[in-house]
Amino acid sequence: MSEQTLVIATRNSGKLIELCELLSDLPFTLRDLNSFPLIESVEEAGETFAENASVKARAYAQQTQFITLADDSGLEVSALGGAPGVRSARYAGDGASDAQRTNKLLAELSRQSSGDRRARFVSAVAIANPAGLILSVSIGVCEGRIANAPRGQNGFGYDPVFIPNGYDKSFGELSAEVKNEISHRARALKGTLNFLRSLTAASGDG
Amino acid sequence: MSEQTLVIATRNSGKLIELCELLSDLPFTLRDLNSFPLIESVEEAGETFAENASVKARAYAQQTQFITLADDSGLEVSALGGAPGVRSARYAGDGASDAQRTNKLLAELSRQSSGDRRARFVSAVAIANPAGLILSVSIGVCEGRIANAPRGQNGFGYDPVFIPNGYDKSFGELSAEVKNEISHRARALKGTLNFLRSLTAASGDG
Repeated sequence: MSEQTLVIATRNSGKLIELCELLSDLPFTLRDLNSFPLIESVEEAGETFAENASVKARAYAQQTQFITLADDSGLEVSALGGAPGVRSARYAGDGASDAQRTNKLLAELSRQSSGDRRARFVSAVAIANPAGLILSVSIGVCEGRIANAPRGQNGFGYDPVFIPNGYDKSFGELSAEVKNEISHRARALKGTLNFLRSLTAASGDG
Repeated sequence: MSEQTLVIATRNSGKLIELCELLSDLPFTLRDLNSFPLIESVEEAGETFAENASVKARAYAQQTQFITLADDSGLEVSALGGAPGVRSARYAGDGASDAQRTNKLLAELSRQSSGDRRARFVSAVAIANPAGLILSVSIGVCEGRIANAPRGQNGFGYDPVFIPNGYDKSFGELSAEVKNEISHRARALKGTLNFLRSLTAASGDG
């Protein structure tokens, strides 16, 4: 009868829409951080996506006292030695727009002579309980390449300049339906869906 | 193959989650207003929910050049002559929190001697095309009563003080699963889902 609450630890509405779609078949009542006005933000200062996702999941689960799912994700560009990587969201400084970040990325890449445009999106999804215990961490990767210019308006972040392998359209052009089949975030969540289902089963009548 | 984009004309992440859940079975790529950084907000100065929803849908569809769905909703309390009504979001002034609004409502109601705590949630959902043409407006109502104090943390807005008829829990206590069966917004959308499906069918291979 009763659904469990799952807090989605994000204030990025593009990420919120995507996670909401990916989790729509699970019996959770979803809440995002904006519904907790007094919550304190945590710094994402870790060296890996898994570390940052875990820090966020733990801190917000402890503050909200609900099971919390956090995603930390970014773009690793081969010719830039894996940059922007875990600094993807701050690549053009705090407060920069998605367009400023993608433009900086395209400019940096244009200075490389190799012509190597390979890149991958990486997502780490961590789940923590109200005691701050990390219950699950899973990683998803989507390999692709960087487009010559931003294309399309779907998605968020670096989506307009990322073309996944096997496609000739960017994540900004591909539909949510396609992105949610192949994306790094979808793949990370696949490793966690069965675990999330077990949480809802365990909280039933017992 | 290709999904159509549907803009959800809101910056309220609670409403965004709810609409995302209610629309999850439809083949749309959803975007919210935060993904259009340059968009200009429109004033909700109309006298009815339907008027406000239509004004928002039209304005954002014209600005984004995508089919746009807007919801305007509020709480009508019998003993307060239907207040806060279309002013629900501004009932305690601009910038007030959900908690400030619900507290003001409880205080106003406590000054009434009738003991009448009947109330209804009303939602108007409007859909407009990029030319600014209103394609559909539908209204949904959920009858209930005002709780003596806020209860539960689910949902958003006045949910913690609204107990729908047939239940002894507030929308703040009821799961998203239950709320999405009986809410004003769910009922308004039911009148629109077939229309939305016809839009996606029409945009297929033809």
